[in-house]
This record gives sequence, C-alpha cells and structure tokens, in this order.
Amino acid sequence: MPLTALPTPLSLADRVMTRCDELAACSESPECLTRRFLTPPMQCVHDLLREWMGSVGMSVCLDNAGNLIGRRESPGAKQTLLVGSHLDTVPGGGRYDGVLGVLIGLAVVEALGDAELPFNVDVIGFSEEEGVRYSKPYLGSAAVAGCFDPDWLGRVDSTGVTLREAIATYGADPSHIDDCAYDADEVIGYVEPHLEQGPVLERAREPVGVVSGIVGQSRLRLRVVGEAGHAGTTPMAGRRDALVAAAQFVTKVREMGIDTDGLRATVGHFAVFPGAPNVIPERVEFSLDVRHARDDVRERAVDQLIIAGRRIAEVEQCLFEVIEKSAQGAVEVDQPLTLALADAISDVGFQPLCLPSGAGHDAVIMAQRFPVAMMFIRHPGGVSHHPDERVERDDVAVAIDVLTRFVHKLAVQTSDKS
Amino acid sequence: MPLTALPTPLSLADRVMTRCDELAACSESPECLTRRFLTPPMQCVHDLLREWMGSVGMSVCLDNAGNLIGRRESPGAKQTLLVGSHLDTVPGGGRYDGVLGVLIGLAVVEALGDAELPFNVDVIGFSEEEGVRYSKPYLGSAAVAGCFDPDWLGRVDSTGVTLREAIATYGADPSHIDDCAYDADEVIGYVEPHLEQGPVLERAREPVGVVSGIVGQSRLRLRVVGEAGHAGTTPMAGRRDALVAAAQFVTKVREMGIDTDGLRATVGHFAVFPGAPNVIPERVEFSLDVRHARDDVRERAVDQLIIAGRRIAEVEQCLFEVIEKSAQGAVEVDQPLTLALADAISDVGFQPLCLPSGAGHDAVIMAQRFPVAMMFIRHPGGVSHHPDERVERDDVAVAIDVLTRFVHKLAVQTSDKS
Repeated sequence: MPLTALPTPLSLADRVMTRCDELAACSESPECLTRRFLTPPMQCVHDLLREWMGSVGMSVCLDNAGNLIGRRESPGAKQTLLVGSHLDTVPGGGRYDGVLGVLIGLAVVEALGDAELPFNVDVIGFSEEEGVRYSKPYLGSAAVAGCFDPDWLGRVDSTGVTLREAIATYGADPSHIDDCAYDADEVIGYVEPHLEQGPVLERAREPVGVVSGIVGQSRLRLRVVGEAGHAGTTPMAGRRDALVAAAQFVTKVREMGIDTDGLRATVGHFAVFPGAPNVIPERVEFSLDVRHARDDVRERAVDQLIIAGRRIAEVEQCLFEVIEKSAQGAVEVDQPLTLALADAISDVGFQPLCLPSGAGHDAVIMAQRFPVAMMFIRHPGGVSHHPDERVERDDVAVAIDVLTRFVHKLAVQTSDKS
Repeated sequence: MPLTALPTPLSLADRVMTRCDELAACSESPECLTRRFLTPPMQCVHDLLREWMGSVGMSVCLDNAGNLIGRRESPGAKQTLLVGSHLDTVPGGGRYDGVLGVLIGLAVVEALGDAELPFNVDVIGFSEEEGVRYSKPYLGSAAVAGCFDPDWLGRVDSTGVTLREAIATYGADPSHIDDCAYDADEVIGYVEPHLEQGPVLERAREPVGVVSGIVGQSRLRLRVVGEAGHAGTTPMAGRRDALVAAAQFVTKVREMGIDTDGLRATVGHFAVFPGAPNVIPERVEFSLDVRHARDDVRERAVDQLIIAGRRIAEVEQCLFEVIEKSAQGAVEVDQPLTLALADAISDVGFQPLCLPSGAGHDAVIMAQRFPVAMMFIRHPGGVSHHPDERVERDDVAVAIDVLTRFVHKLAVQTSDKS
C-alpha cells in the first residue's frame, strides 16, 4: 500500500484530541473527571477502546488486572513492542494524563497501516496508576511486569470492597493475576508517551522530548519543636520559636535546590501549632520532597539538609526531628530505545531535548522487567491533575509521527539483528 | 492597735494561696478551670468573696455589670483607691490569672488593719476581662470606667443568650450599666497586681516589678500568593513558591524583633495551601503581631516589615497582600502612682524593676478614665492561660507587703496635699 493512502499525523492527532474528549465523559462525577480503578466509567472507556482498536484490526483482550490490551499481530513474530499508559485519573483530573499515551499508541498503529514488522505491537491501557482507589499506585503495570503482590488483593477501598472483589466484579479473574505478566524474553521494550506535567518543553519551545531517566525520590516527614509563649510578654531573646527555625530550614531547602544541578527540593506540607496569632509557635510539622536522577546526589542532599536542619534548630534552641523517611531509587531508561526515540525526533525536524521525569509513571514499574523509554509531550501551562490540563493538537501530531518512525527504526534494527 | 497584732505578709500570702485553690474549684468543667462571664461558677466565686470581704469589715455590692466590689470605708473620705483584677478565666485556664490580684487586694485590706486612711479602698473583682463568652473583652472594667457601649447588651453567646439576659438572670440591672461608673474626681487611681505572664522577672530573679506601660499592639493578617506546581516536574528556577517567600518574611520579622529594643514581633498563625507534600505551595496566610511601649516605634516597625515583605515577595515572583490591619495604642501608666509603687518595692528591699506589660489587662480600659499603676508578680515557668500556671507563696507575700506600704505612702501624700 502506498504511503499516501495512510492518514497523516495531523489527521490522526485530530482524532486523538476528539477521543480524549470522548473518554473524558466517562467519569464517576458529572462535574469533573474522576475515574478510579475498575469503576463503571472505566467500563465505558474500555468499550470505546475495544471498538477503536478493533476498527484497525487489532485483537483486544482484558487481562486479569483489568488492563485493556490491543494487539497488532505480526504473523510469526516472537517478540512484542509494548506501547501504553494508564486509563485511570485522580479525582478532578485532566483529560490527557495517561489516556493521551494510550490513544497515541493506537494512532501509531493506524499510521503503521499494513507495514510488515518483525514484532507485534501491543497497545496497553493500564487499569491503575494513580493509586487512588486502593491507596496503591501502579496496580496495572505491576501485573504486566510480573511484580504484583497477591497480598494486595485483600486491600479494601473506601466502601469496603476488596481489590479481589473489584476485579471479579469487573469480569476478570483475581486468582490468575500471574497470567498478566509478559515474559521478559518476549518483550522488545515498553515505550510510554506522556504529557510532561511540567514546564521544561514549553520553556524550550519543543513539542516533544526524550526522558533521560525517572528521578529517584526521598519523602520525609519532619518536625521542629520549640516552646509556646505569649507573643506580647515573651522577650525576643530567649524565645524558642519553632516557626522561626522551620522557616530558616525552608530557605535552606530552596538554596540547596537552586545550587544543586537537577535537584528538586520542596516543602509542600507545613503545619504550625498551636497556630494562634498571639502565641509563639511551639511546633511545626512539615514534609520534604527531594528528587534527582542520580541517587547519590539525592541522598547526599537529604543528608546535608538534615544536618542543616539540626544546626538551625540548635541555634534556635529547638529540636529537629525526622519522623519518617522513605525513598525510591531513580529509574534508568534503556539507552538503545531512548537513542532511537531521539533519532526519530531529529528525523521529524526537532531537537531531541533530553529531560528527566520528575514524576512517577507506569514506566517506573515496567523498568523492573523490561527495557523502557519515554517520550514527553509539551504541556502548555504545565497544570496537571487538574481540569485545566492542556495539550496542543500539533504537538500530538509530532508525537505520533515520532513514534511511528521509532517503530520503523526498531523494525530495521530487529531485522538487522536477526 | 499595735502593728505586731497584724497578720504578717507571709501568713496573708498563705491564705491567698489557699483561696486561689478554693476559687479554682468554681469551674464550668470538672476537668479544668473554665469560668466565663456570669456563669454559675462565678456565683460560687462571688459567694466566697462576699464572705471573706465581710469578715474583714468590708461592705460588699454587686454592680450592674456583674462586678463584685468590696469597700473598706474611711468615714468622711471623699476619695477612693481602686485595687483589683478580673474573676473570669479562659477555657482551661490557670488559677492565678486575675483572681490573684483580687485576693492580694483583699489581703492588703486585712494588712491595713484599723489604720486610718484619708480615702476608701475598693477591691474590685471584675466580671469579665478575657472576652470569651461574648467575644468582647473588658466588659467589667468598661462599665466601671464609664465606657460601656449599650449596644454590647445585644451580643449573644454561643447558646443564644444575650448579654442583657445574662446580666438580668444574674440579678443585676442591665438597663442601669451607667451606675457602675465611678466619677473620675472621686478616684485616686486604680492599681492592679497581676501575674507577669512572661519570664522577665524570673530571669531577673525579682519577686515583683513595676509596669512601665502597657504596650500598643498591631495585628495584621497577611497573605503571600505564588503558583502551585508539581514538586517533581517543576524546575527550581522560575518557581513561585509562596512558602519560600513567607519563610523569608518570618526570618525578617524575627530580625526586626531582635534588632529593635523592646519590640515584640511574632508570626503565630501560619497556614500553607494546598499543603500537599508533592505540590509547590501556592498560598500562605499568616498573622503578624507587633507590640511596643512606644506607638511610633511600633508603627515604623510594621511599615518597614510590610515594605520588606513586598520586596521579598517580588524577588520570589509572588504577591504580598495585607488582608487586615488593626492597632491599639500604648497605654501610659500614672507616673506618681508608679513611682510610689517603685518606692514601696525598694522599701521592702528589692530592686524596683520596671517592665512593660506585653498583654492587655483591665488597666488598659481603666486608664481611659483614671490614673493607673500595675504591679507584676513573678511567674515561674511563665506559662499562662494554662493549668500549669504557677506563683510562689513568698512572692505573693512580697506583693502584699509592697502594696500595703504603697497604700500607706498614698495616705501620707494625700494627707500632705490636703
């Protein structure tokens, strides 16, 4: 079939935009977009996706974790390229986070037309990534990556329904979650197109970018304890003002973030007690979120901040306490796949800007078992997890074009190897 | 009657301590001490006070604002010295705040014995100072100082009872609040003994001190507005973090407080929105409390802090907003009365340490009409408005001794004048 008969990336992007709107109507609430793991609106999304996948000749199945998978089968192929993202949303979320990646995958299948490929292409709509219904993110990708812990099936949602019951009610079999896992040998890799959820591409005026890695993250709960006192009767000298100490720590966190290349350091939660205008603050409880693509840099930053916090608190005659500390290591992307993505971006005529992903994605889990690569799509305004979430049709067209070329490149590479 | 027959300050102080314990049992709650304006426990306090005042020959009356007043009458005297403080408490308050001053006044009357004085001594237990029941402080002293606004009678408490009804139910006449006011000509002055509610005397190791003035107070509600963003995906450069800006302001407030002699500057309320660990703070709303004995110093400090806040916010690309700003001027104490108090402290053998009152007291209102003086009593631990509130028996004895000598000094001065 001649190339001219294939739909153009722009016409495919138009359809992706329309479909994002259609899927946004599948919500638990009429006022905003909320679609949690295997709730009835997810069924409505699955029905539409089945129809759209079927119309381009894909075979569609629901796995036992509630993931919807459409396969573009290449007869005789022993390997499969996975493309996808998630179909659930946060409460009051946007219409592109997750869904956009699945629909771009589907558009790429359409753009591929009848091209003969040495591998299958599976477009996966993960059932769960946001962790809202069962306070546990990545349920869908964990099943596909073979690291779903069966203990999770006992978790209950806010109405007392277990994860096991939710899956069974949806028509899948929770006792065979293992079946969801792909053999590592069988998978060429997983590539995830996703909204950037940040301003880097917008500032750089690039429509798409290549993810250089997914940053590791330290999460801390901290506390500064001083002494309450009357704001009018307690002299300034000798006060043990917990807010004064914590405020200096916030400034220190900001300095460390600015001074350390690639670091993100944020105090987002910050509660002051007792919180009365005429009482010197006795206690401040706050969070610290530190991220970096390199685990050693992140860990050193956290250690230095704790030391700085203790020193500041000491000067203010306060206590600095680490209540809780947890961390998740950085995720490396697959170099060959990422290089192929970058080449495809150059081919389309743009700079292959490399940027780390500051947020987690299904790719974090998929990377535990498969080579992964991610492409970010420019996010105007950068407001994610919000009804104002936006994406430009023309950027989506670039993403479809890039990913189609990427698949063709892989096909050539795979053929060369065999 | 020879002086030796009079009870010693120490034995009187013992009795004051016991009586503070007795009055602390008059509470709305069995778990803690809560005694609001004209609630039933106030009746129990009044019954005990009437008995104790009567036992030393005082005539006792309840005025129409619910103040209990005991008079030590000097036959033929045309003037009166007022001594007192308040009988109400904050919820979960301490047993000395207010009550101590009334009981010291009564002890002084006992210490005076049959001494002939050229003036009456009225010991006043004000009905209301804390402003808890009707969200309006100083109801009792306002009535005595002749500045009670009849509109206040329409105020309702949390159960819908008006101030008018509360007074009538208590057996007083709300339509004749005017009767409570003393003629300014008739009053020599008002002297209030009170717990310091701060650490100055404790640090200086002095049992009592003379109040040099009651500080003026500025109360501000402020807001810093930046922009929310994802803690992982938003680069540090270009962030508009409202907490980072507000934290620098807190540091600035502290610096100004330390650098300006006698200033108290406090941020006590501080709320960060949205307050999620992984979201850059969009908005911080906070209080600023600034106090100083000199109004010009206080006002200049507030102006400079607002300018500094705007400058800090500008650098952080945030907005700095003054939501609300109110102020109360400093109150001057009467110099001759205060000098007499200081002399009496010297006579007892202590340094007459002068210190400003950082908190408001009935004396603030009384000063609008009468000469006032205040004596602070050392407050070990400095924890006020709290069950842990403490005072030492020996310090109470000094206060009684000082105040008795002060009354004798006034008697001499008054006789000299006439």
